[in-house]
Amino acid sequence: MNITGQDLIRACSAIGAGLAVIAGIGPGIGQGIAAGYGASAVGRNPGAKGDIMSTMLLGQAVAETTGLYGLLVAMLLLFVKPLG
Amino acid sequence: MNITGQDLIRACSAIGAGLAVIAGIGPGIGQGIAAGYGASAVGRNPGAKGDIMSTMLLGQAVAETTGLYGLLVAMLLLFVKPLG
Amino acid sequence: MNITGQDLIRACSAIGAGLAVIAGIGPGIGQGIAAGYGASAVGRNPGAKGDIMSTMLLGQAVAETTGLYGLLVAMLLLFVKPLG
Amino acid sequence: MNITGQDLIRACSAIGAGLAVIAGIGPGIGQGIAAGYGASAVGRNPGAKGDIMSTMLLGQAVAETTGLYGLLVAMLLLFVKPLG
Amino acid sequence: MNITGQDLIRACSAIGAGLAVIAGIGPGIGQGIAAGYGASAVGRNPGAKGDIMSTMLLGQAVAETTGLYGLLVAMLLLFVKPLG
Amino acid sequence: MNITGQDLIRACSAIGAGLAVIAGIGPGIGQGIAAGYGASAVGRNPGAKGDIMSTMLLGQAVAETTGLYGLLVAMLLLFVKPLG
Amino acid sequence: MNITGQDLIRACSAIGAGLAVIAGIGPGIGQGIAAGYGASAVGRNPGAKGDIMSTMLLGQAVAETTGLYGLLVAMLLLFVKPLG
Amino acid sequence: MNITGQDLIRACSAIGAGLAVIAGIGPGIGQGIAAGYGASAVGRNPGAKGDIMSTMLLGQAVAETTGLYGLLVAMLLLFVKPLG
Amino acid sequence: MNITGQDLIRACSAIGAGLAVIAGIGPGIGQGIAAGYGASAVGRNPGAKGDIMSTMLLGQAVAETTGLYGLLVAMLLLFVKPLG
Amino acid sequence: MNITGQDLIRACSAIGAGLAVIAGIGPGIGQGIAAGYGASAVGRNPGAKGDIMSTMLLGQAVAETTGLYGLLVAMLLLFVKPLG
Amino acid sequence: MNITGQDLIRACSAIGAGLAVIAGIGPGIGQGIAAGYGASAVGRNPGAKGDIMSTMLLGQAVAETTGLYGLLVAMLLLFVKPLG
Amino acid sequence: MNITGQDLIRACSAIGAGLAVIAGIGPGIGQGIAAGYGASAVGRNPGAKGDIMSTMLLGQAVAETTGLYGLLVAMLLLFVKPLG
Amino acid sequence: MNITGQDLIRACSAIGAGLAVIAGIGPGIGQGIAAGYGASAVGRNPGAKGDIMSTMLLGQAVAETTGLYGLLVAMLLLFVKPLG
Amino acid sequence: MNITGQDLIRACSAIGAGLAVIAGIGPGIGQGIAAGYGASAVGRNPGAKGDIMSTMLLGQAVAETTGLYGLLVAMLLLFVKPLG
Repeated sequence: MNITGQDLIRACSAIGAGLAVIAGIGPGIGQGIAAGYGASAVGRNPGAKGDIMSTMLLGQAVAETTGLYGLLVAMLLLFVKPLG
Repeated sequence: MNITGQDLIRACSAIGAGLAVIAGIGPGIGQGIAAGYGASAVGRNPGAKGDIMSTMLLGQAVAETTGLYGLLVAMLLLFVKPLG
Repeated sequence: MNITGQDLIRACSAIGAGLAVIAGIGPGIGQGIAAGYGASAVGRNPGAKGDIMSTMLLGQAVAETTGLYGLLVAMLLLFVKPLG
Repeated sequence: MNITGQDLIRACSAIGAGLAVIAGIGPGIGQGIAAGYGASAVGRNPGAKGDIMSTMLLGQAVAETTGLYGLLVAMLLLFVKPLG
Repeated sequence: MNITGQDLIRACSAIGAGLAVIAGIGPGIGQGIAAGYGASAVGRNPGAKGDIMSTMLLGQAVAETTGLYGLLVAMLLLFVKPLG
Repeated sequence: MNITGQDLIRACSAIGAGLAVIAGIGPGIGQGIAAGYGASAVGRNPGAKGDIMSTMLLGQAVAETTGLYGLLVAMLLLFVKPLG
Repeated sequence: MNITGQDLIRACSAIGAGLAVIAGIGPGIGQGIAAGYGASAVGRNPGAKGDIMSTMLLGQAVAETTGLYGLLVAMLLLFVKPLG
Repeated sequence: MNITGQDLIRACSAIGAGLAVIAGIGPGIGQGIAAGYGASAVGRNPGAKGDIMSTMLLGQAVAETTGLYGLLVAMLLLFVKPLG
Repeated sequence: MNITGQDLIRACSAIGAGLAVIAGIGPGIGQGIAAGYGASAVGRNPGAKGDIMSTMLLGQAVAETTGLYGLLVAMLLLFVKPLG
Repeated sequence: MNITGQDLIRACSAIGAGLAVIAGIGPGIGQGIAAGYGASAVGRNPGAKGDIMSTMLLGQAVAETTGLYGLLVAMLLLFVKPLG
Repeated sequence: MNITGQDLIRACSAIGAGLAVIAGIGPGIGQGIAAGYGASAVGRNPGAKGDIMSTMLLGQAVAETTGLYGLLVAMLLLFVKPLG
Repeated sequence: MNITGQDLIRACSAIGAGLAVIAGIGPGIGQGIAAGYGASAVGRNPGAKGDIMSTMLLGQAVAETTGLYGLLVAMLLLFVKPLG
Repeated sequence: MNITGQDLIRACSAIGAGLAVIAGIGPGIGQGIAAGYGASAVGRNPGAKGDIMSTMLLGQAVAETTGLYGLLVAMLLLFVKPLG
Repeated sequence: MNITGQDLIRACSAIGAGLAVIAGIGPGIGQGIAAGYGASAVGRNPGAKGDIMSTMLLGQAVAETTGLYGLLVAMLLLFVKPLG
């Protein structure tokens, strides 16, 4: 087995990147629930569709952040660290 | 065992890619709940079908993003990194 | 043990492909809930069956995507990468 | 231990195939819930049985897909790859 | 330890077959819920027993499929592959 | 350690058989819920006891199948394969 | 370490037997829920105690089966296989 | 390390016995829920205390069985097999 | 490492005893729920305190059994088996 | 590594003791739910505070037992066995 | 590696102590639920604040015990055993 | 590898400290639920804000304790034991 | 294998960074629920949209913090420690 | 492999730091629920927005603490211990 330390780091980074984006399970469930509540609210009060949708989208945008953190860390593990 | 470091990286990338798309469990559950709430809301108020559906689809589109992150990282692990 | 690096990659790809399609648990639960809500909504308001069903199917189609990502990554792990 | 790389691939494929069909847990739960809601809806409104059942079956058919992906990947791991 | 590659494949196939039928947890829970809803619906409206039961059984039959996939893969792992 | 490949297969089959019957968790929970709903429905409408019970038992019988798959695979692992 | 293949099989059978009876978690939870619903139904309608109890017990008996499968496999692992 | 095969069997039996009684988690939760429903039913209808309690106890007795299976297997692993 | 087989058995027994009493999670949750329902029932109908409490305690006593099984197996692993 | 069998037993006992007290998760959740129901019941009917509290405490005391079993086994693993 | 048996015991004790305090998850969830129910009850009936709070605190104190067991075992693993 | 026993203890202490503070998941969920119930109660009865908030904070303070135990054990693992 | 200690630290840091951002599952679910409740509240009372949204965003901002802790630790593991 | 004990400690500290901040899952879920209840309460009673928000924020602040403990321990593992 002809493996250098740099190879080990990159192999572990590949596993770590896979783990990192699993964080997306959380926002995925949460934002889907938000979409369901939003659609349900529009069905009860179609006149407030604009207000409901902007509230839903704003709340979802905040929930998106932790998913983005996972993507960011995965990207850093794949592209930036092996150069470092 | 005649294994080079590059082989180890690609083997771990295959495992990592499999882990990464598991992130799709989250959006899958969430979007399904959204579809259920949407269909239920249309049943109660068919006249607002357009509004309900556009809200549901917009909310689902946001929830899709974290699933896409998982796909993106899996693709990078399979195609881009072994070349890097 | 006469194992080459290419063998290790393909063996790990088989495990990774198995992990990848597990992502289907999410859409499976979610779409089933959507089907239940849809059938329930049709029972309460049979006249809106077309609207309910189109909303349900559209929402389910979006939820399907993350399951397809898992299949796509599994396919790539099995067919494309060993050639790469 | 007289093990070739091809043997290792097929052994890991057997594990991977077992993991892949576990994806059926999701559709199994979801479709069962759909069946329960459908039967309950028919009990409340027997006259709409045809509409309820067609909606339920259509929704379940979509939910079935991710379970089929798991079966497909398991089949590929068992029959196609060892020949590849 | 006098172990051939064929032995390793069959040993891993035994583990894989055990994992594959675990997929039955999903349909088991889902179909049980369907049975409960069905019995409950018959209790509220005994006159629609035939309609409720046929809907329940049809829905359960669809949910059964992913459990059958698990059995199929387990059978293939035990009987077909070692001959292949 | 004087271990033949046949011994390894039978040892792994013992583990696999233990895993296979764990599939019974699903039907166990589901059928218990069905029993509870059934008893509850009889309490509300004792006159429909026959109809409720036959629906419950029929639904439970379907749910039993995936538990039987687990038993079947466990039996095959213990009795049929070591002879094969 | 003076360990024969037969010893390994029996050691793994002990682990497998322990795993097999864990399947009892499912029926344990389900039957307990059934007992609770049954007692609750008797409290609301004591006159139907006989009907409620017979429905509950019949439903529980079906749920018991998967727990028995676990016991059966455990017994086979402990007593029958080492002789085989 | 001076370890015989018999020692390995007894060591694995100790682990297996610990796993086996974990099955008691299921009946423990289920029976506790039954006790709660029973006490709640008595509070609503104290006159039916005898009927409620006998139903609760009978249902709990059935739920106890899978816990007893776990104890039985644990006992067999500790006392009967090492002699066998 | 100067380790005899007896030492290995006792070390594994210590792990097994720790696993065995984890079974207490089930009765702990269940009995706590029972206590909550009991207190709630007394609050609604203080006059039936004796009946509620005796039902609750009897139900909890049955739920206790599986926790006792875990303790029993742990005790046997610690005190009886090393002498055996 | 100069490790005797007695050292291995004590090291495994330390892990086992840590596992044993994890059983306290169950009573902790259950008793907390009981406390919440009790406080809620007192809020609805302050005049029955004594009866509610005594019922809650009695029920919690029973739920405490399995947590005590975990502590007892942990203590035995730490203090009694190394002397044995 | 110059590692004595005493070092191994202390290293495993560190892991065991970390596991032991994880038991605090249970009381943490339970007591938080109790606090929520208590605050909610005070909001509905502020006049009974003293009675509600004393009931809540008494119930929480009992729930605290299993968390304390975890702390106690962790302390013993860190301070008392290495001296023993 | 030039690793002393003291190094192994400190490395395991680092893992153990990470495990210990995971206990904070419990209080985090519980206290958040308490905060939600408290805010909801204030919204229904703003006049009792002081009473609700003091009850909520007192209850949360008790729930905090098990999180503090985790921190305490982590601190001891990091600072006190390596000196001991 | 030509691996230095610095390589091992960086490889473990990659795994640790992947674990750290998994903490984002919590805020992702929680904030999504908040978005759903917010959109639902706006649908019931559109006039209070500003107040609802500011409360929702403020609460979400607090929930974001633990996700940020995960990102912060991941960043430190990737960029700061290898220099330290 | 040229690895010193100090390297092992720092590598395990990196894993431990990643585990420690996972504690943030708890406060993340809890605080998000609190934000949802708060926004919902403001929607029902906008006049009490100040009182609701201050209660929500105070409760969330307490829930934040266990997330901070995780960050604190992670920081200590990364910066303070390697110097110690």
